[in-house]
Amino acid sequence: MKYSTIASAQTIILHCKAKGIKNIVISPGSRNAPLTISFTENTFFNCYSIVDERCAAFFALGMAQQLKEPVVVVCTSGSALLNYYPAIAEAYYSGIPLVVISADRPTYKVDVGDGQTIRQTNVFNNHIGYSANLKQDANHASEVYNAYELNIDVQDNIQTYNDAELNTALNTAIHLKLPVHINIPFEEPLYNKVSKPSVVPNIIFDKKNDRKPNNIEFFKEKWSSAERIIVLVGVNEPNAIDQELLDALGVDSRIIVFTETTSNLHHPNFFPSIDSILAPIEKSNNKEELFKNLQPEILVTFGGLVVSKKIKAFLRSYKPSEHWHIDKLKALDTYFSLSNHIKEKPSFFLKSIVNSKNNKSNYFDFWNAKRNQYQLKRKEYLCKIPFSDFKVFDIILKSIPNNYQLQLANSSTIRYTQLFNNNKTIPVFCNRGTSGIDGSVSTAVGASIYYSAPTLLITGDLSFFYDSNGLWNNYLRKDFKIIVVNNGGGGIFRILPGKEDSKMFNTFFETQNNLSAKEICKLYNLEYLQADVEYLLEEQLKKMYKITEKPAILEIKTPRLINDKILIDYFDFIS
Amino acid sequence: MKYSTIASAQTIILHCKAKGIKNIVISPGSRNAPLTISFTENTFFNCYSIVDERCAAFFALGMAQQLKEPVVVVCTSGSALLNYYPAIAEAYYSGIPLVVISADRPTYKVDVGDGQTIRQTNVFNNHIGYSANLKQDANHASEVYNAYELNIDVQDNIQTYNDAELNTALNTAIHLKLPVHINIPFEEPLYNKVSKPSVVPNIIFDKKNDRKPNNIEFFKEKWSSAERIIVLVGVNEPNAIDQELLDALGVDSRIIVFTETTSNLHHPNFFPSIDSILAPIEKSNNKEELFKNLQPEILVTFGGLVVSKKIKAFLRSYKPSEHWHIDKLKALDTYFSLSNHIKEKPSFFLKSIVNSKNNKSNYFDFWNAKRNQYQLKRKEYLCKIPFSDFKVFDIILKSIPNNYQLQLANSSTIRYTQLFNNNKTIPVFCNRGTSGIDGSVSTAVGASIYYSAPTLLITGDLSFFYDSNGLWNNYLRKDFKIIVVNNGGGGIFRILPGKEDSKMFNTFFETQNNLSAKEICKLYNLEYLQADVEYLLEEQLKKMYKITEKPAILEIKTPRLINDKILIDYFDFIS
Repeated sequence: MKYSTIASAQTIILHCKAKGIKNIVISPGSRNAPLTISFTENTFFNCYSIVDERCAAFFALGMAQQLKEPVVVVCTSGSALLNYYPAIAEAYYSGIPLVVISADRPTYKVDVGDGQTIRQTNVFNNHIGYSANLKQDANHASEVYNAYELNIDVQDNIQTYNDAELNTALNTAIHLKLPVHINIPFEEPLYNKVSKPSVVPNIIFDKKNDRKPNNIEFFKEKWSSAERIIVLVGVNEPNAIDQELLDALGVDSRIIVFTETTSNLHHPNFFPSIDSILAPIEKSNNKEELFKNLQPEILVTFGGLVVSKKIKAFLRSYKPSEHWHIDKLKALDTYFSLSNHIKEKPSFFLKSIVNSKNNKSNYFDFWNAKRNQYQLKRKEYLCKIPFSDFKVFDIILKSIPNNYQLQLANSSTIRYTQLFNNNKTIPVFCNRGTSGIDGSVSTAVGASIYYSAPTLLITGDLSFFYDSNGLWNNYLRKDFKIIVVNNGGGGIFRILPGKEDSKMFNTFFETQNNLSAKEICKLYNLEYLQADVEYLLEEQLKKMYKITEKPAILEIKTPRLINDKILIDYFDFIS
Repeated sequence: MKYSTIASAQTIILHCKAKGIKNIVISPGSRNAPLTISFTENTFFNCYSIVDERCAAFFALGMAQQLKEPVVVVCTSGSALLNYYPAIAEAYYSGIPLVVISADRPTYKVDVGDGQTIRQTNVFNNHIGYSANLKQDANHASEVYNAYELNIDVQDNIQTYNDAELNTALNTAIHLKLPVHINIPFEEPLYNKVSKPSVVPNIIFDKKNDRKPNNIEFFKEKWSSAERIIVLVGVNEPNAIDQELLDALGVDSRIIVFTETTSNLHHPNFFPSIDSILAPIEKSNNKEELFKNLQPEILVTFGGLVVSKKIKAFLRSYKPSEHWHIDKLKALDTYFSLSNHIKEKPSFFLKSIVNSKNNKSNYFDFWNAKRNQYQLKRKEYLCKIPFSDFKVFDIILKSIPNNYQLQLANSSTIRYTQLFNNNKTIPVFCNRGTSGIDGSVSTAVGASIYYSAPTLLITGDLSFFYDSNGLWNNYLRKDFKIIVVNNGGGGIFRILPGKEDSKMFNTFFETQNNLSAKEICKLYNLEYLQADVEYLLEEQLKKMYKITEKPAILEIKTPRLINDKILIDYFDFIS
């Protein structure tokens, strides 16, 4: 066991250790050597080395997403730190405790022309749970210039200050599930070691707040008397809700449960593929009437962000009388009608109010008929369409072996996946906090590390190449798999209203390209498979799932120019 | 000519046009469609499409570095924007007018759970010349919700406000050479077009401030009477100083002109390779005496950031009595002894004070002898060492054809290049604002676009792979060339004091890897050449310079484990 000689570096390490923060993702650098040394020489920590900081932060995010506990990223001073920002914003909106630790130059060397030096304090101000700006050690301010009174405090005061900052930062990450930033200035020498720490930090474990119990009777009464209830679930971790409770929701004829792919909730009576219900209404002649019929009295939501734009548009126009959001920490007013933020665990709250009283209502039955209808139509449609994104997603999703973890990239990938029913043994994740196309590969790799079964990432070509550096590390599991649905550009833009076939459109919206993942596979020594017709796809999928000796990528080339029409026609066909 | 129907989008386009801002780098997205349409449908602008926003911003930075005028980057809402930050910080410290335009959701849709939505206003607060937060058009607030009074102003007031914000932002970029951020919320519909703009913006062209003339006589007198003057030049654009003036500095025996590779200044009597002068002093027995002998009375600096750590350490310990920094806009107190910020063009100010009076002093002569000595020694050393980073840089730098532009990556690359004399027909650039290893490929590609001759980027392997997405665009010139000096990791860490041969060091500091640029060449259809011995390197260099049909990469593999020793021994050998 070794530590940096620098007391503030020791302090950080001891705080992390005391709070059980074990996983540390380090990017190379010299200024952060006191941290790198202390983390890597201490067997309590699992350390990972990733060069590209943008990837490192998403990798850590993926890991924290799975572990549901803080994961640390550590980098050197300068622009390195700024490359963390996309993942920090994602963590902020997805409620993931990413702990960012940046080494800094001593304050008096900022803005005087030193290399790799920027203004690191509070730099993530807009999207951070807490910014702890630690103070430099008094006994390591070796290069003090007379002209510049450094005004360095005595070491005891510094220790007290740093302990307090670290307690606030780490407790914010742990209890509020938010990313935090800890900035720490180090003076040279940076590489000296000792075998025992010289400090005894004062570590405080936040007590969880005792919450006032919600007025359960109030909600129970409203719930009982309502005739139309929509339960809508956004990003939600697997197994968060008991099956018994789901069953109770599923058989209540007053309730429609809308789920998304990322809800990780399954029941035969639930309504996945929200857009397959809503698009036909939008196209209907008696649209107004149907929407009114669907309009709930009470909207109950839990989980994170919702993908479906159609459900947002519908609920914003046909507002519920009440909108209750159940989440211990936060509630967004997504539908501009939030009436209650219920600060409980969804499973706990729902159990208290759901009753078996048999309120007769034709709400479920009416929409269930619609659901059954589009499901039949979808089957029919899939039989008649040619090889295309739409068909490919149906085939892929049916093929995934039980208990795989499914990671989805943003844009087309998540939207196509939403159109199909999913295997309930497969937990699904997608970075919906900021819904960026950046970071999907790195997140999936990070998420795979501690998962008990193989991980499959499905991604479009743009998202894949954007984050191909996510493969640049030594932590790819042999059972890690990627499917790249390559439609030669940002296929989603062809579906948007602005589409037109012009050079301008192809270049600046679709960003047409002819890249292949093949060379990326060679670069990082991954198995490469390819398919561009249906029978071959079925074969290659089987082959891919069987590969056990190295990670594999299956690239599926789909016809760029017909994908959009097939998707648009799907909604016409089921209407 | 077509414009978005949205008045605020038109306003931005018309401001850019009026101020002669022609080059626009666009990343794909839907929210920014009003801007994409207006820029690309307007023949005044040269538009470039780049998917990865991190690369797009560095590409624009490279272009602005060469053109010395603002270049625009445009992206959609959400995390896309955050990927610009590394380039923005570089632009901030390098004084490059990067104009960032981000499309945003309407304000009332921020933080309510909409996709691709973050807090974009003022998000680059720590490193930005100005943040203009434009207001949304009144007549495009199509989705107004009763519950939320949008409090949207009348259109005339919005126009006045937006004009003022745009004038401040663009004038800051143009006159203060700083990056600026313009954020603009758009409501749907986003794709509608008109052939003529509906707005007549009020565009103000900043008058340049009349500066008070400096008290030239004061400086002239001090300059004349000093016996030891150091002129030290950081990052400086080529041809900024007349040769006549350089000659006058070169022949004055009281003056030592220290130049860096990035100073782009040449004279037979100047002192490039600063560290080759300073390292022998550091190692000398009479170090104190030699440093005192070198200590200047007056230190005159101009240009941007200085690479050499040794000169900073020396001047901070042996402070000049006066430090004058000449720059129209800013002065950093790099040596903690800044006495005067002279707000003039360096060429203008120096012309006013430099005189031909023959002040006899042995200052130049003494150090010139040292310089001649190390140059002889360096020659000798180069003959006796094996193939290694050190030798490779000597060979490469001698090989570059006249008038090529040389772009350097950070870390080892710039530090090795500094050790040799450079061909004066070759302008040299390196992102020294933040000295990051990120963005070097993209910057070089952007810088090559309008350059009159071929561009060569020299980079290490980490910096190359970090930014290999910089090749993911359609703007690589056929005469664009990259040399990757691949020492299998971050070779520079072996030189730092913390080196030790352990798995920990190899993994977390050096980040040892076995990647080759070969697959990247295949992916992007570049010519690939390789060399790992001297005779082959000479051959491959010749071959590479002759390639005209497509861009080319020459990868040079150097022996990972001996590079550091050869560099350290060099300083011993010349001492």
